[in-house]
Amino acid sequence: MMDATSGKEDKNNKDNFRDEFKVTPWEVEGKIDYNKLIAKFGTQPITQEILDKVKRITGEIHPMLRMQYFFSHRDFDWILDKHEGGENIYLYTGRGPSGMVHMGHLMPWIFTKYLQDKFGSHLLFQLTDDEKFLYSQARSREEIKNYTHENILDIIAVGFDPKKTRIIIDTKHIHYLYPIASEIAKRITFSTAKAVFGFSNSTNVGMIGFPPIQAAPCFLPSLIEGKPTPVLIPAAIDQDPYWRMTRDVAERMGYYKPSQIHSKFLPGLGMSGKMSSSKPETALFTSDEPEVIEKKVSTAFTGGQSTIQLQRLLGGNAIGCPVFWYLRYFFDTERRSDERLLQCKSGNLLCGECKGDLAKESKSFMIEFKKRREKAKDVIANFMYDGETYEK
Amino acid sequence: MMDATSGKEDKNNKDNFRDEFKVTPWEVEGKIDYNKLIAKFGTQPITQEILDKVKRITGEIHPMLRMQYFFSHRDFDWILDKHEGGENIYLYTGRGPSGMVHMGHLMPWIFTKYLQDKFGSHLLFQLTDDEKFLYSQARSREEIKNYTHENILDIIAVGFDPKKTRIIIDTKHIHYLYPIASEIAKRITFSTAKAVFGFSNSTNVGMIGFPPIQAAPCFLPSLIEGKPTPVLIPAAIDQDPYWRMTRDVAERMGYYKPSQIHSKFLPGLGMSGKMSSSKPETALFTSDEPEVIEKKVSTAFTGGQSTIQLQRLLGGNAIGCPVFWYLRYFFDTERRSDERLLQCKSGNLLCGECKGDLAKESKSFMIEFKKRREKAKDVIANFMYDGETYEK
Repeated sequence: MMDATSGKEDKNNKDNFRDEFKVTPWEVEGKIDYNKLIAKFGTQPITQEILDKVKRITGEIHPMLRMQYFFSHRDFDWILDKHEGGENIYLYTGRGPSGMVHMGHLMPWIFTKYLQDKFGSHLLFQLTDDEKFLYSQARSREEIKNYTHENILDIIAVGFDPKKTRIIIDTKHIHYLYPIASEIAKRITFSTAKAVFGFSNSTNVGMIGFPPIQAAPCFLPSLIEGKPTPVLIPAAIDQDPYWRMTRDVAERMGYYKPSQIHSKFLPGLGMSGKMSSSKPETALFTSDEPEVIEKKVSTAFTGGQSTIQLQRLLGGNAIGCPVFWYLRYFFDTERRSDERLLQCKSGNLLCGECKGDLAKESKSFMIEFKKRREKAKDVIANFMYDGETYEK
Repeated sequence: MMDATSGKEDKNNKDNFRDEFKVTPWEVEGKIDYNKLIAKFGTQPITQEILDKVKRITGEIHPMLRMQYFFSHRDFDWILDKHEGGENIYLYTGRGPSGMVHMGHLMPWIFTKYLQDKFGSHLLFQLTDDEKFLYSQARSREEIKNYTHENILDIIAVGFDPKKTRIIIDTKHIHYLYPIASEIAKRITFSTAKAVFGFSNSTNVGMIGFPPIQAAPCFLPSLIEGKPTPVLIPAAIDQDPYWRMTRDVAERMGYYKPSQIHSKFLPGLGMSGKMSSSKPETALFTSDEPEVIEKKVSTAFTGGQSTIQLQRLLGGNAIGCPVFWYLRYFFDTERRSDERLLQCKSGNLLCGECKGDLAKESKSFMIEFKKRREKAKDVIANFMYDGETYEK
């Protein structure tokens, strides 16, 4: 069990946070207050000024930014300046292949594709099959290998530029990562790792040795380009401890600190918690058949009242409703979503209608996505990292 | 600073040993009592019964066994039985490439070659370039890379069978080691590693993650052969903590526990301590020119009296004399060495004579060895591990 709340900078606040929620690379629990998370992790909120800069550069503000699904960052403004100044920036994100991919996983990847399109960036996509194997005594290598393969199909199906995207599978490509990971590892003491990741005496030595492997791709672009190269990591906020550690050693090693832009979690379809592979009934997987999606949506928890009469009278609680957020983040325009919120609150909209919208949209999305997943099977090899500098 | 004395099984004895000597994979200090080391590490002495068995199998008892340079073991008798029973046994040894090779390093390798010749065994030879890089903040990767290359020439020059010997360089061949190292790592908690290796809060996470990498070649032979395969590790006793750890997890992973045969350290030419790269004036390196060898031997510490007259009167202390041991282990026959001991004790032999013998023998050994080192340059590629099963 890992506890990222034991970081030095928030020692005093620790107990305030502990009982409310926990966000670490291995566990997300409780009802998350994202503003508190910004304070706790020491990151920055995404300000209007930054959004204006994004608009100036890309000509638009992606809905996931405008709707604050990406809500926090480290040096995102700095990397925008670098891009504006004509520097080649790289994107880096990843996935721990411990299960099938669901829509909560897809969101940051879809956003990453938007960044790739807008910035013309190369992307490194890491699959931490080693970490997922090390973390659980119960998981076999075969199981992880199977998920790794399945997850790669999803990654490719998102539509990343095949000329500019390379997938790194830790166990397969360890020889590219290990030398740089060793450089990082020798600069991180057990004390530091314990404070950042909450390691204890019962943590296995593989998990203790792992963080530098996840940090390594932050510096690969500098090796590929032969000069310090800015890297932006779009990923959920639970991964932040890795980047905090990486930023601490970056400059001593002659690299830029990697920048991050942090997303929230997509709520699960249950009463609370994020969409999670460990609660499959609350998550919509890309491998789910239409009738399964239909069923999961129809039994989803909502913010509605217990009867139609009460709903008409009191209105629903859209803010606490996963169906609302799911539609807002994934399918609704912002305008449509705002309208939905009003209609729900005023009692004009019933849960069945929202569920109907979500089931319809999800099914049609998944049908299309499945086709792209099938096509991905033929091009996996093109996406594999090979240590060579690829198209500039 | 590592302290292997903190192992669980010797907690009560810990303080008795601490002040006298210290033997860990990273440090050997003080005057070593090898019998106490057997008790401390929980290994077994090599008995007459085992020597008899060796003689029955190989037709001889190697001088390094008879003279107790190899003095301790774990399951050496078991592996002899396996060999007698017709099982294919593998040898595995290694080298941390943190400096040039001296004669103290060569001894276990020469013994390993003898085992390879007698048993017809395959040999895996690991170079832990990662460990040497991780251990020292001061050492650059270039420096370690250079020593790795130089050390490989020495290894090949020892004369191992090129058809049956493969060299593993951790950083170069990490993709062969990493999957099996992860299997080991997930079975070893930080508590255990701390107890075995003396890790502390200031140890870097690379060093904590390293032991499974050194353990991995213990199980590679089973993967190569496709069945549990006995492995014998001839190495100096300071490496024992690794094997203790590996033996603890072996059977749970479906492998045999690796067997060991442990050597003493070759004394340095100074007043105390083992022959060490960190005290170059006390070590005879394979790269030393004849005049350098001559000089080092002529200024060596001996067990002789301060004047010729006293030597004639009182006799010398051969047992405390590195020149004596050097000759005994390396160049003298046992009979010649026993005679030298008597002559020294009785005052008939003067230090100049022994030094003369050692200088002459060492120089001629090195001249020959250097030629073999030169020839090794052309065949390095043949010795590299390639993950394939090689000649059976």
